[in-house]
Parts: sequence; C-alpha cells; structure tokens
Amino acid sequence: MSTIERGNGVLTLINVFTVEPEKQQALVALLVEATAQTMKRMPGFISANIHRSLDGKKVVNYAQWQSMKAFEAMRSDPKAGSHMKAAAELARFEPILCEVSDAISV
Amino acid sequence: MSTIERGNGVLTLINVFTVEPEKQQALVALLVEATAQTMKRMPGFISANIHRSLDGKKVVNYAQWQSMKAFEAMRSDPKAGSHMKAAAELARFEPILCEVSDAISV
Repeated sequence: MSTIERGNGVLTLINVFTVEPEKQQALVALLVEATAQTMKRMPGFISANIHRSLDGKKVVNYAQWQSMKAFEAMRSDPKAGSHMKAAAELARFEPILCEVSDAISV
Repeated sequence: MSTIERGNGVLTLINVFTVEPEKQQALVALLVEATAQTMKRMPGFISANIHRSLDGKKVVNYAQWQSMKAFEAMRSDPKAGSHMKAAAELARFEPILCEVSDAISV
C-alpha cells in the first residue's frame, strides 16, 4: 500500500505512457519487473504504482522518491536506463515531476 | 492522507492538465475549491490529490471514486460540470480512467 500526503518532501513522478492496447499488458509487465528487479533496490525509492487505463491506451506509473537527488541518481544508473529503453520500444511516455499540493479525502 | 492499493475495486481518475505556468496556481486553487465545495459531498467520492509539476506546466489530479457508477453520476451533475468548464478556461486536460494493476513499495 502506498500513501499520498502533502508536505512530506516526497518527489512524485507521474509517468504517462501511451500504448497500443495490444501492448498494454506487456508494458505493465515490463514496468513491474523493472520496479521489482531494479528501482526497488535503489536508495530513496518509496513506491511505484502501475495503473492500466480501462480503454487499453494508457499506462500510468505513479512513483515516489525520497528526494530529487535520489531520483536523479536512479535516472543516471545504466540499469534503469536499460529498462526505460525497453519501455520506449513499447510506448511513448511523458514523465511529470511534481509535488503534492493538496490531498483531500473523505 | 490517501492510499493506493491493488484489488480494492476503486476507480482511479488521473487527470493531466496542461497549463501556462502563470496560471498553474489559479488552476490548483480552482481544483481544490471544486473538490472541497462539490466533489467531496458526492456519493462515492474517496479522494482528490492535486499535484503541481515542478516546471509549472502541468497539474495532475489523482482522484479516487468508489465505482464507475459514482463517477458517472458526478460527471452528469451540473455543479461538477460548472467546475470543469472553469478549468477548461485555464487549461487543456486529458482524463485517464484506470485501475491499479500493481502497487510496489519498500
């Protein structure tokens, strides 16, 4: 289980992948494997939450890192680069680096 | 605090807004107000989590509803429509309806 909170200094990466529906499941599997094998073991990793769109055309990774420094260290690691190259062969993606402004729940 | 889990039947709406940086704060304020005044009171609302991108060009609302039925009832409510019309005057947006496939955390 992952949590979303305001004001905890977490860096959130929302990566929106656009994919052909017949490749959606392969992309989900690739992201899960990349997370379990590589990202999860890196310093500062908090969570990766892989979402599949109901129309089959998108996959969204809602990922959390302890800091920008930890995120940048991951991005410059060749093991992570290898996973992202494989993802780029399946889909276009648009990574959005952000922070939680407001979290409102019932 | 909001939580992300697999297999709980929650409908997740990831709405990616593209905005001019000078309007980012106004859009965040509008979404927070719409949530507090309207969405939060609707049946089936779980959470809305408003994120601002560090480059100023995006706002992402990570929202959770108990079911597709509850989400569709919200969408057809004129009060919600009025908020979305105001948002459309500030930004383009791309709503992605999805489910959690995998949630991996440390």
